[in-house]
Amino acid sequence: MKTSPDDFVPAAGNGLLDRRVFLRAGAAGSLGLLAASAGAQERPAWAKLPGEGMGPAGAPSKHEAHIRRGHLSLQTGTTGSGASRTPLEFLDGIITPSRLHFERHHSGIPDIDPRLHKLVIHGLVRRPLEFDVDALVRYPAVSRIQFLECSGNSGVLTAAEPVQASCGSIHGLVSASEWGGVPLSVLLDEAGVEPRGKWLVADGADAAMMSRSVPLEKAMDDAIVALYQNGEPLRPANGYPMRLFLPGWEGNISVKWLRTIKVTDGPAMTRDETSKYSDLREDGSARLFTFPMGVKSVITSPSPGLTMRQRGVYQIAGIAWSGAGRIARVQISVDGGNSWADAALDEHVLPKCLTRFRAAWNWDGGPSVIMSRALDETGAIQPDRGSWFDGQSRGNFYHYNAVHAWQVGADGESTHVYV
Amino acid sequence: MKTSPDDFVPAAGNGLLDRRVFLRAGAAGSLGLLAASAGAQERPAWAKLPGEGMGPAGAPSKHEAHIRRGHLSLQTGTTGSGASRTPLEFLDGIITPSRLHFERHHSGIPDIDPRLHKLVIHGLVRRPLEFDVDALVRYPAVSRIQFLECSGNSGVLTAAEPVQASCGSIHGLVSASEWGGVPLSVLLDEAGVEPRGKWLVADGADAAMMSRSVPLEKAMDDAIVALYQNGEPLRPANGYPMRLFLPGWEGNISVKWLRTIKVTDGPAMTRDETSKYSDLREDGSARLFTFPMGVKSVITSPSPGLTMRQRGVYQIAGIAWSGAGRIARVQISVDGGNSWADAALDEHVLPKCLTRFRAAWNWDGGPSVIMSRALDETGAIQPDRGSWFDGQSRGNFYHYNAVHAWQVGADGESTHVYV
Repeated sequence: MKTSPDDFVPAAGNGLLDRRVFLRAGAAGSLGLLAASAGAQERPAWAKLPGEGMGPAGAPSKHEAHIRRGHLSLQTGTTGSGASRTPLEFLDGIITPSRLHFERHHSGIPDIDPRLHKLVIHGLVRRPLEFDVDALVRYPAVSRIQFLECSGNSGVLTAAEPVQASCGSIHGLVSASEWGGVPLSVLLDEAGVEPRGKWLVADGADAAMMSRSVPLEKAMDDAIVALYQNGEPLRPANGYPMRLFLPGWEGNISVKWLRTIKVTDGPAMTRDETSKYSDLREDGSARLFTFPMGVKSVITSPSPGLTMRQRGVYQIAGIAWSGAGRIARVQISVDGGNSWADAALDEHVLPKCLTRFRAAWNWDGGPSVIMSRALDETGAIQPDRGSWFDGQSRGNFYHYNAVHAWQVGADGESTHVYV
Repeated sequence: MKTSPDDFVPAAGNGLLDRRVFLRAGAAGSLGLLAASAGAQERPAWAKLPGEGMGPAGAPSKHEAHIRRGHLSLQTGTTGSGASRTPLEFLDGIITPSRLHFERHHSGIPDIDPRLHKLVIHGLVRRPLEFDVDALVRYPAVSRIQFLECSGNSGVLTAAEPVQASCGSIHGLVSASEWGGVPLSVLLDEAGVEPRGKWLVADGADAAMMSRSVPLEKAMDDAIVALYQNGEPLRPANGYPMRLFLPGWEGNISVKWLRTIKVTDGPAMTRDETSKYSDLREDGSARLFTFPMGVKSVITSPSPGLTMRQRGVYQIAGIAWSGAGRIARVQISVDGGNSWADAALDEHVLPKCLTRFRAAWNWDGGPSVIMSRALDETGAIQPDRGSWFDGQSRGNFYHYNAVHAWQVGADGESTHVYV
């Protein structure tokens, strides 16, 4: 029985505790108030009368109405262009509820009639094919829990001064879902890709005519034509009735409202992979086709807006992910990077998925800077802010994955800082 | 390139194909219509004008409004007592969207103010404790994706004649979610269970005063006080702001709206574990405390209401689960049990979770009886209907887990049959 934070083994400076606290026994030290009259607790009013009945669909609690997608950055002069972000600071685990999945549209959400929508596969194939939803659901399918991240996520960290906003408003262009559908390899095999076919161009049925080039190797590896998200048909905002899903790659290339796949001998150099979603370098050249999202971690709690009201033990929680595979390790610092200790990872550490990490911190009530850094199974390490900028052109904000920091003040409020 | 169902390797009678169809290449054989003018496909109206913008929460497509919880069996003369069921036939993968999670309430959903709700741990402990939500979120937490099944699920299969209803209406008292919260062992360790403490009694804040006895061993193993479901705070219908969650055990014991845990030296023999949720035997005795849910599988597609409109290759899909651990194997028959072949399992085969299975079937258009049977990692096999009844009293319907069957008619409609 641990009764005081002093019983815990420290793991790094400023009160960070050993992650074995999470493995068993011990606790957060006296957070349970002693219940003098325990057992004699009176039944509250809501426990005395029958409650509300049930209906065809459930809803979140009215007490949690503040959990909504924030920071709707709508582009002036456009209809339906912009982004909405997942409120990461209020979520736990790895699944993002579909209603809170981030969105990034370039011309809003098309109102597609699923009975009329077709996917055409053509170009360098022996047999052009056309599929509707009814045909696709008859095909061998797969499902996997994986993240999707916009390559512009966290891009505001390229600003000269740290933007003050919630964790979700800064880092919430990432979400994770169970994605289900038909392996693209199955459909391409049926169409019969010709030897000259090395790329494909995917085109969406939105008015932005979103189109992106995909190397055939990725299409034949783990790409799917997704029909399901978190068990149910895709939401309109996520590509209903079908989208491309390319695990681990920048979100934009997982073309929503997928309508054509053209097999080609090279990339098409579309607007969306040249003027946008490419990385301008210091020397004036641009890196194109930088698809996989880098290894990254974000501390979701504590974070701006979540006040720590008293000193003592707190859980530090966050998410880590890598487009290259599984997360191998996450480390936490609560002294601005002077010392680090391993975080505990939740049971499900899935490839190309969010991984939930946690650490126990005995907060002494003083100002502290908290940070996390992730390592993936390929050995890639999340960079610090300084090295992320190496070679980048000023103004480039795609693929930002550097370590970030929150400063917890003596008032228990967190702010965004650069270290 | 496979261009005809005849190219596939059969795996069992009546057109069941080898599961390697699911592993790579090959396909469902010519379901893609030849697109004569492929590439010249005209852009539909919805692809020409900007679409709808985005808001603080997303919603399902208006074209999928039929996907709702069905078969609301409300008990006459009560308020909010009864069940709503997950529409399994329209879902894929393993996650159940929270709005479609099944419900079983005994006196409706209490309207709890989370700021006033407390959990008290008392009884045979050295230090009685009281926790509110703000205290619990500071504790080391875990999250895991696991199923929850009402022990009355599929109980209508004890009727003399097969009930004709949708898959979800018959089998939809099972769902799977990511459940997150604090290990109960952490809280019990902090309270300090006395040596005489062997059980605990959990009590919910609903007007039904739901209470159940839990062996200490399970409480210290993988039980949690859940605060999160699928990444967000619990829904009111699932115990907001906190519930007990006992992985793999009958749903009723995962007491919702958890308000007290009393450590005792034996079970309390509450109403809910004696007059209900116990298994009456043929000899008049009752089996009590039959907690783990048995190994089970259900074919979700094809199933009643999902019409097969033409002969050819179809995906047979379903879910399998076991309260004892992981699913090891699922077999499919499409000839009424005369021959069986292995189904393919989706990538995530998690302990005490739904596992999605699939098989490819070349339907010749004739009447066929399709069935599935599951095996778990402990070696337990899903029983057939006849052996399930061995020793049971007539009228007992709890813990029904026998193999079920759908008959696909020449008209492509499925009906529920006993074999």
